[in-house]
Amino acid sequence: MRARVFVTLKPSVFDPQGTTVADALHTLGYAAVRDVRQGKYFELDIDAPTSDEARRIAGEAADKLLANPVIESYRIEIDTTAEAVAR
Amino acid sequence: MRARVFVTLKPSVFDPQGTTVADALHTLGYAAVRDVRQGKYFELDIDAPTSDEARRIAGEAADKLLANPVIESYRIEIDTTAEAVAR
Repeated sequence: MRARVFVTLKPSVFDPQGTTVADALHTLGYAAVRDVRQGKYFELDIDAPTSDEARRIAGEAADKLLANPVIESYRIEIDTTAEAVAR
Repeated sequence: MRARVFVTLKPSVFDPQGTTVADALHTLGYAAVRDVRQGKYFELDIDAPTSDEARRIAGEAADKLLANPVIESYRIEIDTTAEAVAR
């Protein structure tokens, strides 16, 4: 089963990477892009019998390793079909 | 409108960051996590009239700036509700 973990800086935390990307996009002519936030993305292949169990494992992994809870929040999605991700 | 861009290394490209994360999770006792791939995640706030237009702008941004097409692939999701992301 595949778990996707999205880690982003909390809204109150300044995101200089995202600001730099937004500035670069404005320079390229994309004024419609108002704001950019950059984060991390993890795909975990988890050997779990149920999606609840996969979510629990992914949550513990995020709490302990993937995210810094002081400045980051995370979101988890479980993909039970475990389809190929690359296009 | 919010566009989410997920950038991952192509499956054929070695991902040392993901391997390191997987090894660390195994050390922490999470043997159920078989494989980890790490990528980048961008949230773009786009001022666009339609989701198709937002997707077009996000795709161009990914092609030109966010992803390296030689070694990375990307996926775009459009969130028309633009809900708050942090939980």
